[in-house]
Amino acid sequence: MSNANEVVVRYLTAWNEPDAKRRRELVAKAWTDDGTYVDRVREGNGHDSLDAMIATAQNHFPGHRLHLASGIETHHDYVRFSWVAGGTSETPLYIKGTDFAIIAADGRIKSVVGFVDAAPAPAA
Amino acid sequence: MSNANEVVVRYLTAWNEPDAKRRRELVAKAWTDDGTYVDRVREGNGHDSLDAMIATAQNHFPGHRLHLASGIETHHDYVRFSWVAGGTSETPLYIKGTDFAIIAADGRIKSVVGFVDAAPAPAA
Repeated sequence: MSNANEVVVRYLTAWNEPDAKRRRELVAKAWTDDGTYVDRVREGNGHDSLDAMIATAQNHFPGHRLHLASGIETHHDYVRFSWVAGGTSETPLYIKGTDFAIIAADGRIKSVVGFVDAAPAPAA
Repeated sequence: MSNANEVVVRYLTAWNEPDAKRRRELVAKAWTDDGTYVDRVREGNGHDSLDAMIATAQNHFPGHRLHLASGIETHHDYVRFSWVAGGTSETPLYIKGTDFAIIAADGRIKSVVGFVDAAPAPAA
């Protein structure tokens, strides 16, 4: 597959882009036209849907940025990596996830299945 | 989906069965008829192929048994879990892996993509 590091960086950059217009462009660079994302609580299918999904997540976790938190493991067209967000004084809610992606021939992501490794404790 | 714990136990039981006839039966209980497994070094498609793949792995790691080494995380039809094998005086080669599976409606596994988290050091 194309450079997995670049694929993952493009993906995390899209999740982290606060500007709506740039984010939509980055989504189109990260995912194929029919690209998908699904985890327990959110889902996106295609660029508009994925962009709206990320916008909702950004509003839910204001100021959070995803940082790569693992090696990038690949075989065949598959890639696995973990990320963390928050856990800082500015963004105390700490989140950790592992994403399992399938990469298309053009180096964009065809599908992502996300699993949450750590999530904020429910409000008391 | 059907009980994910049962799905994973059936799957690990198939990997661990030393008797060829019983292993073939357990493979058919664990995977759908067109079920697949793929990791960096091995691949199986359908029951005969999956059974032969497991037999080869058993011969490569004699006496090793896979033990569940994580929670079993599921959402939609997806399941993620990690396993360990070896690391004992009888089977010193230690292996750890994480499997991502898709579960079919009948509770059997449709596909598994495996990633190695720890593998034996190459012989000096």
